Amino acid sequence: MVTTNRYHLAERPEGMPDEDTFDLREVELDGPGPGEALLELRYLSVDPYMRGRMRAGESYADPWEVGQPLRGGAVATVVEEHGTEFDEGDLVVGNMTWADYHIADGSDLQRVTVGELPESTALGVLGMPGRTAYFGTREVLEPRAGDTVVVSAAAGAVGSVVGQLAKLQGATVVGFAGSDEKCAVVEDEFGFDACINYADTEDYGDALDEVAPAGVDGYFDNVGGPITDAVFTKLNVDAHVAICGQIALYNEEETPTGPRKLGKLIQTRARVQGLLVGDYAPRWAQATADLREWVADGEIAYRETVTEGLENAPDAFVGLFEGENIGKQVVKIGE
Amino acid sequence: MVTTNRYHLAERPEGMPDEDTFDLREVELDGPGPGEALLELRYLSVDPYMRGRMRAGESYADPWEVGQPLRGGAVATVVEEHGTEFDEGDLVVGNMTWADYHIADGSDLQRVTVGELPESTALGVLGMPGRTAYFGTREVLEPRAGDTVVVSAAAGAVGSVVGQLAKLQGATVVGFAGSDEKCAVVEDEFGFDACINYADTEDYGDALDEVAPAGVDGYFDNVGGPITDAVFTKLNVDAHVAICGQIALYNEEETPTGPRKLGKLIQTRARVQGLLVGDYAPRWAQATADLREWVADGEIAYRETVTEGLENAPDAFVGLFEGENIGKQVVKIGE
Repeated sequence: MVTTNRYHLAERPEGMPDEDTFDLREVELDGPGPGEALLELRYLSVDPYMRGRMRAGESYADPWEVGQPLRGGAVATVVEEHGTEFDEGDLVVGNMTWADYHIADGSDLQRVTVGELPESTALGVLGMPGRTAYFGTREVLEPRAGDTVVVSAAAGAVGSVVGQLAKLQGATVVGFAGSDEKCAVVEDEFGFDACINYADTEDYGDALDEVAPAGVDGYFDNVGGPITDAVFTKLNVDAHVAICGQIALYNEEETPTGPRKLGKLIQTRARVQGLLVGDYAPRWAQATADLREWVADGEIAYRETVTEGLENAPDAFVGLFEGENIGKQVVKIGE
Repeated sequence: MVTTNRYHLAERPEGMPDEDTFDLREVELDGPGPGEALLELRYLSVDPYMRGRMRAGESYADPWEVGQPLRGGAVATVVEEHGTEFDEGDLVVGNMTWADYHIADGSDLQRVTVGELPESTALGVLGMPGRTAYFGTREVLEPRAGDTVVVSAAAGAVGSVVGQLAKLQGATVVGFAGSDEKCAVVEDEFGFDACINYADTEDYGDALDEVAPAGVDGYFDNVGGPITDAVFTKLNVDAHVAICGQIALYNEEETPTGPRKLGKLIQTRARVQGLLVGDYAPRWAQATADLREWVADGEIAYRETVTEGLENAPDAFVGLFEGENIGKQVVKIGE
């Protein structure tokens, strides 16, 4: 029996989540029972997809129920276990609750395999976002040498890796990010050829004409909305568009509208495809191993934004939609 | 030297083309010169894509210039030729002008190879629309046995063939068409499992739920707009969407807007791809041969709407956007 603080879904948010969305409770955990492990969280991941789970309607993840704990990827230490494949003291990654302590079915957990890198990377460049970038680039975007590739949310956990992987394939890579500070990181640390600060740009199409005069052969979309509209008008013949996220739209209550762009696909025979990293689960281990090697070799740079304390997890989550993070946003739990 | 009536682009239309768009001139043709053939037209094709060519802006076909002749696919008899591979009296198909007579570079022409079928089929089920259906189905839509496939403009020259090809693959096929008369043809002659008369339907989504309760695995889109919006909401995981036309939007002057649907692609990992039949030119002969065999064997049915007289070609063209044709719309030239 252990006592933990834990966040529950207080009510479904309308528009941007706020303090009424999150309910911090002190709860007692029963167990761990047979086949279970008691975990002490060290890092919790907050991700844009979680906004979809707060909604009752369909999203690409099952909805959370009101009153139930919020969930997320996390890195934790095994405190106690009964008949799992793990030992006390092991560092594991898996799907947990927004809490100090969590009891998990051992079959949901994996050992953290980050090598010399910080354990938090198991949630970022070596975790779900890194793997999303890996498979999204390899299987959907498919950049070719000489292509011009555009990445939205280029300073983010997924976009930053996509751009670097496309560069490794020989593409010219242009990012969209929301501040000069982010654009500096995108260009200087992540090595993009150019970055458009969308917060400071009136006409995204004109901006693209300047930095991508040969048009767009590949677009990796994390945001949707007007940036995506502008990129679509610049697509070249045979362009590949990977739809990974639509963060600009996640807090809309009404169905957002925009210009109809399907005609552009006839002209270009472009291919637009959505992606979910879960489809590639059988190949995750290879992705993690490749990414770890590339990071160790200095071929892939990464950034993390660390928020301290479980009590600040809601702010860290809301900050995702306000563009506050650079790279992977994690919450450090405990001291 | 021969005198012909010929339509020229009088001015670029705003919205629906009308009498101010078309200029019927009597012109004298010089030639045929070396390597050229004088052709007497028998059937002229009018097609939705021509609306795009009347526009100054980019489309998937180069714009026509004001004052220049309108062009289109046509079947014609060779009246005179100098050093081409054709003989006088040969029946040929190719890109010609909207005219009684046309002089063509022989390299642009092909012999009509319709077998026992009417020569007009070289413009329809055995021509560009049939080939568009053939490659669009085979290379982009890729229907699988057990799939539910939806086809917009199902009574049209392309859609009618797409639906029948999908049926041959074992799919359940649902069409959208604009009248009860068309829906009867779509179900009874083209063998679709169901047809939704969109002119008589308030909620396309509800209508789809009734006839496609298992959702939509494939969508072949000829129209765009609200029908397409409704189908997107019903897409299943791994759905394939082929964008062939957006006829509902071709006469819009302002950029049309609609609900943003890219998020649905994440949820379903659906693939959306545009197509142009010209990309498959090296394989056209095989497509025509296959289609001819299937029509001869009764596996593919087709319809044609024949308008009499060159002077009625503009009306036949405008009629495409008013849903007046069933199957391929052609114009019979001469008596």
